[in-house]
Amino acid sequence: MRTVSLASLNAADKSAFVSELGDIYEHAPWVAEAVAGQRPFATLAAVHDAMTAAVRAAPGEQRLTFIKGHPDLAGKAARAGAMTADSVAEQASAGLDRLSEQEFAEFHRLNDGYKAKFGIPFIVCVRRHTKDSILRSFAQRLANDAAAEEKAALEEIFRITALRLDQRVEAADKLKVHGRISTHVLDTCNGFPARGVKIELWELSANGDRRMIAGTQTNRDGRTDQPLIGGRPVPIGCYELRFHVGEHFARVGVPLADPPFLGVVPVQFWVSEPEAHYHVPLLATPWSYATYRGS
Amino acid sequence: MRTVSLASLNAADKSAFVSELGDIYEHAPWVAEAVAGQRPFATLAAVHDAMTAAVRAAPGEQRLTFIKGHPDLAGKAARAGAMTADSVAEQASAGLDRLSEQEFAEFHRLNDGYKAKFGIPFIVCVRRHTKDSILRSFAQRLANDAAAEEKAALEEIFRITALRLDQRVEAADKLKVHGRISTHVLDTCNGFPARGVKIELWELSANGDRRMIAGTQTNRDGRTDQPLIGGRPVPIGCYELRFHVGEHFARVGVPLADPPFLGVVPVQFWVSEPEAHYHVPLLATPWSYATYRGS
Amino acid sequence: MRTVSLASLNAADKSAFVSELGDIYEHAPWVAEAVAGQRPFATLAAVHDAMTAAVRAAPGEQRLTFIKGHPDLAGKAARAGAMTADSVAEQASAGLDRLSEQEFAEFHRLNDGYKAKFGIPFIVCVRRHTKDSILRSFAQRLANDAAAEEKAALEEIFRITALRLDQRVEAADKLKVHGRISTHVLDTCNGFPARGVKIELWELSANGDRRMIAGTQTNRDGRTDQPLIGGRPVPIGCYELRFHVGEHFARVGVPLADPPFLGVVPVQFWVSEPEAHYHVPLLATPWSYATYRGS
Amino acid sequence: MRTVSLASLNAADKSAFVSELGDIYEHAPWVAEAVAGQRPFATLAAVHDAMTAAVRAAPGEQRLTFIKGHPDLAGKAARAGAMTADSVAEQASAGLDRLSEQEFAEFHRLNDGYKAKFGIPFIVCVRRHTKDSILRSFAQRLANDAAAEEKAALEEIFRITALRLDQRVEAADKLKVHGRISTHVLDTCNGFPARGVKIELWELSANGDRRMIAGTQTNRDGRTDQPLIGGRPVPIGCYELRFHVGEHFARVGVPLADPPFLGVVPVQFWVSEPEAHYHVPLLATPWSYATYRGS
Repeated sequence: MRTVSLASLNAADKSAFVSELGDIYEHAPWVAEAVAGQRPFATLAAVHDAMTAAVRAAPGEQRLTFIKGHPDLAGKAARAGAMTADSVAEQASAGLDRLSEQEFAEFHRLNDGYKAKFGIPFIVCVRRHTKDSILRSFAQRLANDAAAEEKAALEEIFRITALRLDQRVEAADKLKVHGRISTHVLDTCNGFPARGVKIELWELSANGDRRMIAGTQTNRDGRTDQPLIGGRPVPIGCYELRFHVGEHFARVGVPLADPPFLGVVPVQFWVSEPEAHYHVPLLATPWSYATYRGS
Repeated sequence: MRTVSLASLNAADKSAFVSELGDIYEHAPWVAEAVAGQRPFATLAAVHDAMTAAVRAAPGEQRLTFIKGHPDLAGKAARAGAMTADSVAEQASAGLDRLSEQEFAEFHRLNDGYKAKFGIPFIVCVRRHTKDSILRSFAQRLANDAAAEEKAALEEIFRITALRLDQRVEAADKLKVHGRISTHVLDTCNGFPARGVKIELWELSANGDRRMIAGTQTNRDGRTDQPLIGGRPVPIGCYELRFHVGEHFARVGVPLADPPFLGVVPVQFWVSEPEAHYHVPLLATPWSYATYRGS
Repeated sequence: MRTVSLASLNAADKSAFVSELGDIYEHAPWVAEAVAGQRPFATLAAVHDAMTAAVRAAPGEQRLTFIKGHPDLAGKAARAGAMTADSVAEQASAGLDRLSEQEFAEFHRLNDGYKAKFGIPFIVCVRRHTKDSILRSFAQRLANDAAAEEKAALEEIFRITALRLDQRVEAADKLKVHGRISTHVLDTCNGFPARGVKIELWELSANGDRRMIAGTQTNRDGRTDQPLIGGRPVPIGCYELRFHVGEHFARVGVPLADPPFLGVVPVQFWVSEPEAHYHVPLLATPWSYATYRGS
Repeated sequence: MRTVSLASLNAADKSAFVSELGDIYEHAPWVAEAVAGQRPFATLAAVHDAMTAAVRAAPGEQRLTFIKGHPDLAGKAARAGAMTADSVAEQASAGLDRLSEQEFAEFHRLNDGYKAKFGIPFIVCVRRHTKDSILRSFAQRLANDAAAEEKAALEEIFRITALRLDQRVEAADKLKVHGRISTHVLDTCNGFPARGVKIELWELSANGDRRMIAGTQTNRDGRTDQPLIGGRPVPIGCYELRFHVGEHFARVGVPLADPPFLGVVPVQFWVSEPEAHYHVPLLATPWSYATYRGS
């Protein structure tokens, strides 16, 4: 993806600035235009704050038109190729581009119900979600009133645009849009970090589907060189870490049962805050283990 | 199943005694005949010891014929209805009566290879096994020599007959043929046993199949009224306990994330000793848990 | 101590009954007299309930005189030998018979303050207390009003008399007057109970004093043959269990640092409910341990 | 303490160099003289290696004289003021300057026995030791033969001189002479780091003495701003961390017993490797805790 520096955005003429950031807000270059005169921006956070303020300050009619300009989730716009490139990539991140016919129908039913009630499309920052959590969110938000939903729609839009800015613009500061899943493994039988332990991270769906997201192994500190998820929001949903500790204990020569009591240790947990750090370590012996949300 | 008391066996005339215990050893009423004169037996263990001694004392030829009289695992005898009722029930316990065509072929291939090498059928006490562990055992035992396998076959037979005696005869003593899987759940956030926690026990196969064996919930002591497996050998294999702790913490009113960090906690472990007690407790908070093989 | 059976109490003539139970209530044989006619009692609990009811039903003047008949804690009655034998033994249990001059003065100051405010002696069931918790209780109760303190005094008296009945009378039922401290030790490195681990229980005072109450070692189940405290209330206070796990791991041949990371593991906890069961296990490896209030 | 940079040592004339580093080796400026010509040194490790090589390369007689030039531990030299300033400070670090008369006599007895057997003073790098571990080391080394002890004496001298170089010379590299004790505290009831928890570190002696070494409290990450011991060797010995978790749980509003089950949690452990990092965290709820040697 092409990126641009905050410095060059500050130095550009107005039309170049609008050309660079015009599509951050879906089909709404007027937001970039509205803030161009406030340059120079000291930080990326200042750019984001100015743009959200411009949307809030716009006449109600214009804001509503803007909200209505967003594509349906997993909708016809997607199939017809009428979404911005960003929207296409975002909807793919939650698997909305590969729904079964039944799921596609379910999303349409919910979209139609939502539009019938509120007159706007259902907007959600899909990079923060899994298919399951979008469906859950749909159900919760359908119970709201119109004012609450206009507010909710704007909050989701600002999350979407914060992520777009974060990807597009290089600056000294970072927007708080990234979460992390990390782990480490301690061999508490031997009092040292467990090295070379294979670890997988899976995303679990309510319908029983499982999708492996990351596979790695621990380094000499019992940690992984990279977080299992990092540099992006962690989609709200259910995850399973799988720790291959049986192989580790066989390797370090601890006496074991045959087959060993523990082979692969699964740890299932739910992520509720996409921008948070989920550090989920494992303290293991051949006969016991403990895990916790750490820091 | 019809049972008989040790006292009445001791009091019966010889032919009645042989009639009662003649089929404990597969197609070999001569074993019961050989020990009838040693009555009265003080304990059931004494009956079992006398019968195993009679087999060991028999001429080599007779012992071999006896071993050869055992049915193939999952073999044609099973399909042709030529096994004793006990054998039928035993093979069903490990799922050998519902093999896929591919698995059936695999067992035949192994049986034939085993017979070709040793001249006897492959005998294993299937009540102590899962399909996976039988296949593993096949592979290990095919590497033995003939003397080791005659010894192994007899040991398996004595395990089979001990289980049959245990089911058939009521006595003051018990043969050591039963294992156990049990658990308890402590809410370490509140310092009390977790009551009403749903628990399931699943048996996991190497091919990804899962079969639920038991479903229950904890009582006021955080234990289950009955062990999850008890009163029988625990088949060698991989198990998963599933603890529904998320519901518990919601019920007792602890503040939780939405969705809660922990919903269902899976604990996977392997059983290697069918006659042992596997006590696998869970100490849990909404954000952490520990498990171990206890006592 | 001489005991008497409930059956013989039920069968005795009135004067023998009063002679047996006349001193359960301090200097108040009239309580036994009042309930003699209600015999036979089906349970020991019924005896206790009848006697407490008799006290509650007595005229206020008589009840007050009765309350005033109790000795001061650690007071002149103690030194002058004017207490009942039960009171002497009870006060000794909390160490009130071996106070330093300074502590003796402190108790006198509090007693005098209490009597000046409420006109009755400070009454507490000392078998449920340590010196520290009595002082804490003094401070809390001095803040009450007179009605609350008459109520509190009676409740303490009924705890005292329940304990006396429990010791004096043999019956099929037991009064709920006993608590327990127990433990067990698991070697989670090896997956078995840790046998032969030396364990001490100490009572800790706020002034830094330490007193060893019990010393034992674990049996083959990793438990102690007897609870560390049992068959009596567990005095409210601070305790330390000391587990000699370093010696255990040296014995079972696990590789250790020199000196080993863990030698003696101290676990300090407070007892707040004297009639409760405090099960405080230890799960240990040479490099880690966990403890919790279990069940 | 005055320090000097490696660069200026490399640039100095020989006599200035020897003047700066002449007392690194006790009463032996010839060691500095022997390496002056090897300058420039790229790293501090290279200085140390050159100096140890010079000692090893010296004639046996000279090396022995050098070894004999070291002061007795806690000896008359100490009391007579005839040690180098470094030796004085080092012996003070292990408390050898404040021995009781009895301990002083014990050290003398051991020193004399050692000298009588080996003809050299007992040399040990006291900054890596407590009084207890020095006595333990004495006992172990008295069992050696003379060759082993000359080797042991040199190794201890090189540890001493590495520490002196580390304190005296500023360089880009660090010698591996420092260990660390650190901790962090997680509130696993709430799933977040425990902030503001008071922590003390005590050094425990075999004779029952206790000395508080550090007192601090956890920051918002549940860690301490500084390690409890850092920037120096961690003396071999027994330590106790004391975590005031009861106050924490009262502060965050978790329901507690009265008094709370856990007040102060003591964790006792032994340090065997003075240059290692001992990370000893606490995972706690109001009713349970776990600790381990982490990383």
